[in-house]
Amino acid sequence: MTAAVTDFSPLFNPRSIAVIGASQDLTRISGQPIRALKAAGYQGHIYLVNPKYPELHGLKCYPTAQAIAAPVDMAIVAVPAPGVAAAIRDCGKAGIKFAVVLTAGFRETGTAGVEMEAELKRTADAAGVRMVGPNCQGMVAVPSRVWACFGSISEEIELSPGDVSCVFQSGGFGYAIVNLAELQGVGFRTCISSGNETDLTTPELLEAFLDDPGTKLAFAVIEGTPDARRLLDVGRKALATGKPVLIWKSANTEAGAKAAASHTANMTGRADLFRAAFRQSGLIEVDDVEPIVDIAKLVSQGRRAKGRRIGALSISGGSGIVFADRCVREGLTLPPFSAATVAALSKIIPAFGSSENPADVTAGIFNDMGLLTKTLEIVLQDPGIDQLTIMLASIPGAPAERAAEAIVAAAAKTDKPMHVAWSGRRSKSEAAYRILEAAKVPVIPTPVRLAQAAAVLARFEEDRIRLGSRKPPAPAKPVALTLPTGPVALSEAESKAVLQAYGIATTREVFVAENESLLAKVAKLSPPFAVKVVSRDIAHKSDVGGVKLGLRDVLSAEAAAKEVVANALKAKPTAKIEGVLVCEMASGLEVLIGVVNDPGFGPTVALGLGGVLTEVLRDVTYRIAPFGIDDARDMIGELKGARLFAGYRGQPAVDTEALAAMLVRVSAMAYAMRDRLAEMDINPVFVGASGAVAADALVVVK
Amino acid sequence: MTAAVTDFSPLFNPRSIAVIGASQDLTRISGQPIRALKAAGYQGHIYLVNPKYPELHGLKCYPTAQAIAAPVDMAIVAVPAPGVAAAIRDCGKAGIKFAVVLTAGFRETGTAGVEMEAELKRTADAAGVRMVGPNCQGMVAVPSRVWACFGSISEEIELSPGDVSCVFQSGGFGYAIVNLAELQGVGFRTCISSGNETDLTTPELLEAFLDDPGTKLAFAVIEGTPDARRLLDVGRKALATGKPVLIWKSANTEAGAKAAASHTANMTGRADLFRAAFRQSGLIEVDDVEPIVDIAKLVSQGRRAKGRRIGALSISGGSGIVFADRCVREGLTLPPFSAATVAALSKIIPAFGSSENPADVTAGIFNDMGLLTKTLEIVLQDPGIDQLTIMLASIPGAPAERAAEAIVAAAAKTDKPMHVAWSGRRSKSEAAYRILEAAKVPVIPTPVRLAQAAAVLARFEEDRIRLGSRKPPAPAKPVALTLPTGPVALSEAESKAVLQAYGIATTREVFVAENESLLAKVAKLSPPFAVKVVSRDIAHKSDVGGVKLGLRDVLSAEAAAKEVVANALKAKPTAKIEGVLVCEMASGLEVLIGVVNDPGFGPTVALGLGGVLTEVLRDVTYRIAPFGIDDARDMIGELKGARLFAGYRGQPAVDTEALAAMLVRVSAMAYAMRDRLAEMDINPVFVGASGAVAADALVVVK
Repeated sequence: MTAAVTDFSPLFNPRSIAVIGASQDLTRISGQPIRALKAAGYQGHIYLVNPKYPELHGLKCYPTAQAIAAPVDMAIVAVPAPGVAAAIRDCGKAGIKFAVVLTAGFRETGTAGVEMEAELKRTADAAGVRMVGPNCQGMVAVPSRVWACFGSISEEIELSPGDVSCVFQSGGFGYAIVNLAELQGVGFRTCISSGNETDLTTPELLEAFLDDPGTKLAFAVIEGTPDARRLLDVGRKALATGKPVLIWKSANTEAGAKAAASHTANMTGRADLFRAAFRQSGLIEVDDVEPIVDIAKLVSQGRRAKGRRIGALSISGGSGIVFADRCVREGLTLPPFSAATVAALSKIIPAFGSSENPADVTAGIFNDMGLLTKTLEIVLQDPGIDQLTIMLASIPGAPAERAAEAIVAAAAKTDKPMHVAWSGRRSKSEAAYRILEAAKVPVIPTPVRLAQAAAVLARFEEDRIRLGSRKPPAPAKPVALTLPTGPVALSEAESKAVLQAYGIATTREVFVAENESLLAKVAKLSPPFAVKVVSRDIAHKSDVGGVKLGLRDVLSAEAAAKEVVANALKAKPTAKIEGVLVCEMASGLEVLIGVVNDPGFGPTVALGLGGVLTEVLRDVTYRIAPFGIDDARDMIGELKGARLFAGYRGQPAVDTEALAAMLVRVSAMAYAMRDRLAEMDINPVFVGASGAVAADALVVVK
Repeated sequence: MTAAVTDFSPLFNPRSIAVIGASQDLTRISGQPIRALKAAGYQGHIYLVNPKYPELHGLKCYPTAQAIAAPVDMAIVAVPAPGVAAAIRDCGKAGIKFAVVLTAGFRETGTAGVEMEAELKRTADAAGVRMVGPNCQGMVAVPSRVWACFGSISEEIELSPGDVSCVFQSGGFGYAIVNLAELQGVGFRTCISSGNETDLTTPELLEAFLDDPGTKLAFAVIEGTPDARRLLDVGRKALATGKPVLIWKSANTEAGAKAAASHTANMTGRADLFRAAFRQSGLIEVDDVEPIVDIAKLVSQGRRAKGRRIGALSISGGSGIVFADRCVREGLTLPPFSAATVAALSKIIPAFGSSENPADVTAGIFNDMGLLTKTLEIVLQDPGIDQLTIMLASIPGAPAERAAEAIVAAAAKTDKPMHVAWSGRRSKSEAAYRILEAAKVPVIPTPVRLAQAAAVLARFEEDRIRLGSRKPPAPAKPVALTLPTGPVALSEAESKAVLQAYGIATTREVFVAENESLLAKVAKLSPPFAVKVVSRDIAHKSDVGGVKLGLRDVLSAEAAAKEVVANALKAKPTAKIEGVLVCEMASGLEVLIGVVNDPGFGPTVALGLGGVLTEVLRDVTYRIAPFGIDDARDMIGELKGARLFAGYRGQPAVDTEALAAMLVRVSAMAYAMRDRLAEMDINPVFVGASGAVAADALVVVK
């Protein structure tokens, strides 16, 4: 991947644009961008390129981009698919750094398309041209009036400028989101339909948005990406820059993934791993348009919530109740106001209202707006709240206008986020809306939506502190191991040797080869023992009677050894038996640690509680490897059954620090071995009152 | 409670209205309804009542309601709190059947208010006046132009008529919902702010809405109600009438409940029991305004989804993906189209689109709207789908208008629900919106919201079949039992005797009193045994060493009996020991069955899986007692760990039918004993391969 040192200003704010394959027909895909650029009022130079015409639409038409003989920042490519590579080569020769390729007909159409797309990527790399698309609807850069796109967005030139940038793989759907968000008051900066992402991917574009000083918030709608691991860098950069990045990951179900396969042929990936990456790096997951709108409005105010404590005032008690409910569900707290605050409020709020948080100032403000002004003053002086919501129900007209004035005046005297839940009819309340908008006080139509967005604001600031200081650990040096070639499941003994090489504790045990004496070798172990058959050909030992547990002495172990070998051979007569493993029995809380080597995220570590919790309830959590001790602690803490670690029904608390340390080592191992590791299971791990040991392991190499 | 035979037409469609306490000042609470009724164009007669004036606002003013001497259907009462009871008495004498009491200052203000409110209720009952409120914002009946209310809703007279009726305890918040929903295209019929619900409660009003022929859907926003059990009747009536009832239950968190306590002083109740009642009776839970809007629009179309299978067409693949994701999450299926459908679609849909469900007809419709028309025709002939969604992204203008025409034409030829996800700018697409609205084809702005609403439509129809035929069983006859008086926890032996009296199987066991011979009494039991101390004073026997398990013979049992008694006395020297219980050990999957006697819902049965699932993950489900075998089976099936019943790690499947039968008996018992039962725990119940037995029980009487 090209590093993010690329200067994206020629793409986001081009001084001149070439349209390669410019059409005479302005209704065609190769004509719509010309019409849109002109209609939107793009002020840079537009160069048309088409060898068929000397002139088009009143502009000189060039046979090639190279023939333009003037600096061009960006090209829109709309020639038929077989000609796209040549057009990109031409752009390279002309010194054009970015191309937006609208043309479809690449990998989404089948095998021939896949090859043509690979060739296109090689061409772009060689030509030094960074490419958006192909198979995309193009981009819009609102402040610079760049409408380099086709379809209905090419006619939506009334989008107002703002501080939100976004990228989406589906142009039609993405621009519908842009439209709907804009109708609800969100202003946009750069919007990119990224299509097949042959060169520029969602993660790289998100990083570019974070580098753009005018962008305060970025979002992406993503079906999937082979570049998934880079999302972690995006998240870390979001925390570092203080600009939230929202991700709407789609194609999370079989039905969705099937639809995606026939759409952009994007690799959709596992939703649980995406979610883990979001938690790990501070990215924010969204799943509809409204959350994007609401969070963008709050972020646009430019204020930071210093903690999770929210204060609320309403003119209607019912709003305060649903607001409180949702705040708590989303992890905010409504702390009691200070005694001084309550005392001061009690003097002015009517008896049928409430001076506690959430305060109910009652509809009394209709007669006396001073009530709202004074309440705001008192509550904003309370040191115990980090942000403040005012709920105005749907009051219209003059009272709404006066309330807006009171709120704006109060907001000017504080740096705490202040926001309004209000659904007054715009037709009756235009003045009030304008007052609030001019002061950048966000208005969200319902208390529930506002609570959700306020919680995101608070969590993001918390993540900046909590996650922002965490650096991914330096990759561990791979240990020299003699691994068999080709895809194979290692035996338990071999698997445990791999773990031990990376410092992961296993049960004390000895391997007894077929021709060795068990009695001699187990002398140093203490009973009770477990005896297990060792064979690469038997992956699920228990299922074939290949495991005997709780053997009280060496003689029993010896008998068990014969038995497990016999059972294994009975179940699979062709199995090559290497010997048996005699292990000391471990005890403690059973957990399992797994590794998957995901095509998008690479090596990823899973943690689950043993037994019923994992198998019946799928209580499993993930982190992308490698990671440090804090991430490991987070994994342990976020299991639904995490309370078991603290002791359950009289059991002692277990050594979660030892488990966390083991997770860190597994993550280091998984990353170091990423080129060979297909998957791994350590099941069970016994976490005792002191220490944690791997009691069984299965490493599959590729 | 008064049964629902009340004729509510004088309230919903009054021919004449009296305003008791009419004010000279139209800006006061007692003046606003007069202004609102006139402004809204109410056509019936308005009688003003106030002994201070002979005439007011150009109308004759009467000293009392009785003095009107003409039939009056409904009164608006706005006199100060101490005078409300007298006003209601006056209404009764005047033959007025309904009063809407706006006045506040009752139980929400404290002890004196509680008594005044109780007196008001007695007065209304005696006078034969049914009462909305007090402490409410009043009601609006849109088709009859009744604006019997104050506050900002008294100025929102532009609400358009429709088929949705609603009730909410918080007027300010409720009318904000009405406003916001109306702005999004929902038409209303009767809207009632119910305030303190001293007489008419949310459940009774919902039933009245279901009886109203003009109401197609009803919703309630409810903090809590002592009448909670009646919600089950509402749900059953909703299923019987085919009119969905949506409930937004608020005050579900400690913070929310605290806010509610200071608001309407409503008993808020346990959210998990409300949720159980919804599932049990077919009520639909909502938690924000948008779901209400979306479901109301779909219901208003008047079409029924015959199953969960949904078909989808989009002009943008990305919409289809998120739509499919959400449909699946909400329990819908997107079945493959039939081979004939796919074959026909493949002939017309471009290669870069998709002929599978969700079909992607592509933006090709911009050039050829016939593509959409033909696709609709083909898909609607597919017998495998029950409803159809068309996703138009945000296409504006003429293409939107042509698409709307194509959709409306197709909708006219089918009775399947058809709906559109579209966010075109209204300012550019007014014609298209009007075409769809005129044909009652619902338009929802995002595919996600539409998927959610379509799922509700399908589930409601499914519930009509699945739940609609279930009748609550006839209450069991109470068994004559000698129970101690006063609140007391029965001993295990006494508790099990209660269970046995209601036909609930317990472990085979004998009670051995302090002075009896254990050896003689246990002769008929087979080991292994459990021995437990019996004492009302020891509720948690295990905690004090009062239980010994797995005793292999009678002599061990005898020794254990001495030990458990000694342990109990050591832990609680004052305990009155009655003897010991010697039980045969049972085995199987452990579950627990509990009974709570909720102040709102009455006796309610809980089911949880034993051990870690209940205690760590709170995997518990509820049903309001009494209930039949189908509800019991639902309880078993909806536990998160339900898969354990089918056998786990080689365990055999257990007898869920025996467990279901036990749940039914417990529910019958709980209802029969509702006047005495405080709570009950049967923990554990062992569900074996055949049969289920209660191994321990604790009955607490009140």
